[in-house]
Amino acid sequence: MKKNEPVIKKLAPPQATIRRLSIYLRYLNGLDGDGVKVISSHDLARRLALNPAQVRKDLAYFGEFGKRGVGYSVKKLRDHIVKILGLQKMRKVAIIGAGGRLGTALALYTGFERRNFKVCALFDKDPAVIGNEVDGIGNIMPIEKLPAIVKEKGIEILVLTIPAAAIKEVHDIVMLSGVKAVLNFAPFKMLSTEDVDVHNVDLTTELEALSYRLSLRESGLAPTTNDSPDDQE
Amino acid sequence: MKKNEPVIKKLAPPQATIRRLSIYLRYLNGLDGDGVKVISSHDLARRLALNPAQVRKDLAYFGEFGKRGVGYSVKKLRDHIVKILGLQKMRKVAIIGAGGRLGTALALYTGFERRNFKVCALFDKDPAVIGNEVDGIGNIMPIEKLPAIVKEKGIEILVLTIPAAAIKEVHDIVMLSGVKAVLNFAPFKMLSTEDVDVHNVDLTTELEALSYRLSLRESGLAPTTNDSPDDQE
Repeated sequence: MKKNEPVIKKLAPPQATIRRLSIYLRYLNGLDGDGVKVISSHDLARRLALNPAQVRKDLAYFGEFGKRGVGYSVKKLRDHIVKILGLQKMRKVAIIGAGGRLGTALALYTGFERRNFKVCALFDKDPAVIGNEVDGIGNIMPIEKLPAIVKEKGIEILVLTIPAAAIKEVHDIVMLSGVKAVLNFAPFKMLSTEDVDVHNVDLTTELEALSYRLSLRESGLAPTTNDSPDDQE
Repeated sequence: MKKNEPVIKKLAPPQATIRRLSIYLRYLNGLDGDGVKVISSHDLARRLALNPAQVRKDLAYFGEFGKRGVGYSVKKLRDHIVKILGLQKMRKVAIIGAGGRLGTALALYTGFERRNFKVCALFDKDPAVIGNEVDGIGNIMPIEKLPAIVKEKGIEILVLTIPAAAIKEVHDIVMLSGVKAVLNFAPFKMLSTEDVDVHNVDLTTELEALSYRLSLRESGLAPTTNDSPDDQE
């Protein structure tokens, strides 16, 4: 890194920037696979339907990557983003509610491992599914074993796919299990603590955001492309 | 509505505000069920771990709901949010890729209907699953039937749960099917057009956002609670 790092590096990037880094990374991986060496912020932006100034601003949070008038080295930019996102090491993941439909779908989703997340333990509280074997991962275990397995396997992230009614019973064991982060798909907002980062994903909220935009169109107030949920700060 | 509407109403609310409206709505439904009549912005914020000023700002985009020093009428605020989000009428939804695991999980997810989204048609391009019956919805249909069924049933939203490789084949039929919005779970960014709003959801991106935050902690730069993905603008 250079001696004169721009001051902007000190600012915390907004969540939307972090999400776009994921998108850049996926696209850069494709370019690298195709043998492309260099890409300009303009081309990167165009292919992802973003604003070039936005792309430059996103990347500027993390230092100076590009050469003015030349563009970004695809490999270097890719490697930088991997480091920023902490993806240079594999992160171990467990799924709670693995016997349910969404839990099963996520357990068998091959996209996670391609991006360096390894689902390596499955839990449920339903005796009817405990012991069931899931190909390539192992048997579904009772939730009481969570803290021991987290320690034994070095699990960092829990994915929760449980019904809202089960949260009360599962909350404390999850928060005290020793994991560092939770991705919560249950329709109940869980709060982060000093030790555990919680990110809540509500699939119905995604539909409601679309409904809002449909409603705008119906009233003749069509949203502009810039309102796109993916592009917003 | 009052004659002197505040100018702030004219500004387009950020996407994060729309997402929080969903969260407020869910909480207000619970309060209404418990017979609570009035809630202050302070209490609403506290229960959802948000900033009271943020709650007031979110709601101010849509006019004046609360009474100073009294708070919001739970029922009125709930009804207003329902209207803003366009949820007063049922929105019909179809799933493309309904034979896959994520597609099946979403087809059978009961949370959508509780929030006024009705999954009423299922499609796939795999002959092995076409014709399979899904309880309460019907048989999985070949994707070629999409435009006719969209018209016949008045389907407004498509949920895509297909592999990245299938996008190329499915893209045009989806965009020209007559639907107004697409919720895309495929790991491939689809772009909105003038006629069709696309919202891309990438489950791996959610994990990568958590990984970024883990990485900050590992380097001793623990994110503050305000960095929470749920709370950010």
